[in-house]
Amino acid sequence: MKIYETKTAPNPRRVRMFLAEKGIDMEYVQVDIQKGENLSAEMRAKNPLGKIPILELDDGTCIAETDAICTYFEALHPEPSLMGSTALEKGTIAMWQRQVELALMLQVGMCFQHTTGYFKDRMVPVPEYGKEAGINASKYLNILERRLELNPFIAGDSFSIADITALCAIDFARVVNIRIKDEQKNLLRWYDTVNNRASAKA
Amino acid sequence: MKIYETKTAPNPRRVRMFLAEKGIDMEYVQVDIQKGENLSAEMRAKNPLGKIPILELDDGTCIAETDAICTYFEALHPEPSLMGSTALEKGTIAMWQRQVELALMLQVGMCFQHTTGYFKDRMVPVPEYGKEAGINASKYLNILERRLELNPFIAGDSFSIADITALCAIDFARVVNIRIKDEQKNLLRWYDTVNNRASAKA
Repeated sequence: MKIYETKTAPNPRRVRMFLAEKGIDMEYVQVDIQKGENLSAEMRAKNPLGKIPILELDDGTCIAETDAICTYFEALHPEPSLMGSTALEKGTIAMWQRQVELALMLQVGMCFQHTTGYFKDRMVPVPEYGKEAGINASKYLNILERRLELNPFIAGDSFSIADITALCAIDFARVVNIRIKDEQKNLLRWYDTVNNRASAKA
Repeated sequence: MKIYETKTAPNPRRVRMFLAEKGIDMEYVQVDIQKGENLSAEMRAKNPLGKIPILELDDGTCIAETDAICTYFEALHPEPSLMGSTALEKGTIAMWQRQVELALMLQVGMCFQHTTGYFKDRMVPVPEYGKEAGINASKYLNILERRLELNPFIAGDSFSIADITALCAIDFARVVNIRIKDEQKNLLRWYDTVNNRASAKA
């Protein structure tokens, strides 16, 4: 099996970090999204949305979407658990994972795409919307700061996929000048802990 | 346990339909999102993002996010399976669920919020972006049409959570005048099948 990805993009990093935590080796095939290689007919046959990462199994079956690829490997290799073991853990981690994705990662991505014009060859940037998305992302960091005041990790007591998503989103947010603030002490403490895991370098 | 929701909103309908498929009874508490009842301090203590639906367990623990609530009940009541049994099924369904959410439901929602000004008391509508989001949603219906040419259901041979999400998104899309086209025969056939399930009335 192999994964089509772009080394510098934030979502592929989420998958690499997830697999590193599980100790799963993988073959990676680089796709140049700036040149639009992800939009070729060949790549769209693997993922109709023309996005990466894409997991391709040995029989040619493809699974796209970061969270879906992680769901596949969590089912195959449940330990160490990154998406929860009990129903309550699964639901709680899925909640935080989703909120970090929608209220942070997606907002940072929209801010990047709509304010920089990086993909203006394939979409219509709306800078006013991009600016709003950046404000939304900064606001969500305040929610995480309060959450991490009472919890070592985002979904509670244990490291989970939600921490991976948040770390990758926050690192990516530098491209639009959004950073953890000096007074967000709990976020800074959490960032150091998660960023020091070996998987963060994957 | 109970679920805080708004009867007319599309995401709560996804949860009701999911629970109806599982045969799970639930107490529902109505929250008026147009009046902003979801933004009260009391509701934000249950979900910091101030959104519904929210599942509240008897001990007060809350799980927000439609997909997370479904993940919780899928783990508690695995049959009938709506999120897959094998790793490949789980990954495939998660992929389609995610793409229907991001490329259809979210786009319809952004089109609605940014072109109608429905929530202009709490966000800055950017009509130009809303229009783009509507175009994105229509384009994704073309992808679903091709997918359903070879598959009875969105994730493959079996009805799944991705069909629930797509049905609720397509029904909601009427508010922004996006509909399945007459020539999209496979989508129309699929819509009839899914819309005729008893759970569609939940």
